[in-house]
Amino acid sequence: MYEGAVQDLIDEFGRLPGIGPKSAQRIAFYVLEADREDINRLADAIRVVKDKVKFCEVCFNVSEQDLCNICRDAKRDQLLLCVVEESKDVMAVERTRTFRGRYHVLGGSINPIAGVGPDQLHIRELLTRLQDDTIEEVIIATDPNLEGEATSTYLARMLGSLGIKITRLASGLPVGGDLEYADEVTLGRAFEGRRSVTG
Amino acid sequence: MYEGAVQDLIDEFGRLPGIGPKSAQRIAFYVLEADREDINRLADAIRVVKDKVKFCEVCFNVSEQDLCNICRDAKRDQLLLCVVEESKDVMAVERTRTFRGRYHVLGGSINPIAGVGPDQLHIRELLTRLQDDTIEEVIIATDPNLEGEATSTYLARMLGSLGIKITRLASGLPVGGDLEYADEVTLGRAFEGRRSVTG
Repeated sequence: MYEGAVQDLIDEFGRLPGIGPKSAQRIAFYVLEADREDINRLADAIRVVKDKVKFCEVCFNVSEQDLCNICRDAKRDQLLLCVVEESKDVMAVERTRTFRGRYHVLGGSINPIAGVGPDQLHIRELLTRLQDDTIEEVIIATDPNLEGEATSTYLARMLGSLGIKITRLASGLPVGGDLEYADEVTLGRAFEGRRSVTG
Repeated sequence: MYEGAVQDLIDEFGRLPGIGPKSAQRIAFYVLEADREDINRLADAIRVVKDKVKFCEVCFNVSEQDLCNICRDAKRDQLLLCVVEESKDVMAVERTRTFRGRYHVLGGSINPIAGVGPDQLHIRELLTRLQDDTIEEVIIATDPNLEGEATSTYLARMLGSLGIKITRLASGLPVGGDLEYADEVTLGRAFEGRRSVTG
């Protein structure tokens, strides 16, 4: 549609997740009109992240060193391990400030349709960690969707024989939400997981 | 939140138009996990567009040469000139395949609140073109919003004395739309602009 370089850039932005053709065009024109300095910073940031960022050797969280800053932190509780799908989930849990243990990032969830089985995830490394380290509780914090539940079920079965406490994050009503707008599965889970509020 | 380079990249993507913090994070992780070759292509495309693409000396459309491919095309109708706000609008008009004349890109619209007056737009260059070239009709194709209408009114007044036919794109019901869902201004314009359908 456009001449060479502009169309190339629109195509490249259009390949990024969540960016449609209109957004790609809008961003490409923004780049065209922005200060060269800002644009160089963007291009550099893209390259630098590929050069500098790798995955933690222990937990597979993103890291610029061999060990991520959580695995390096001796003050974290060494007895608790939270298993998540992605590095993004580590950040989500960290933001709650309720968990002070360490993590294990699986690198996805079991999804037969997309061809992702247990072997494509960092499950073998999780088993090795559980055999080597003294961990008392594994908290499975995969997504509360079909793939996350399948992964959770698989892990629970795999780890059940290790004699470690295995827990799963609670499902229920989101805080601040309206009961009448909750979907029936969530509301059903909230009933199943109901807790005593009297002493 | 994240360690250095990942957060830098999230910040840079977050500065692009239409990309919020969640999208920026999603794209940054995509970049982290994508093939290095794809990512180099993206970073190169960003730099190349700044190096190679400039604005046409005649019409201010984006171009990799001194003259854009439309101004270079001798087969375009030299008597018709379509005035638009942005290069994106040139593409939008080209896609209709109904206009075979040439363009003049203003580089925006009159917007006192944003501090954009006639002097910030390529209006002086438009006047020079109209004095030098033999143009029979100027079609004002600015956006049908407040700023576009203000720009159109300003241009119509400026160009009125040149003895050239000045037209404005029709406002009315969008094709394929529902009359009952049209806003009252659009529907009002459709009434004002009604056309005879009998011979």
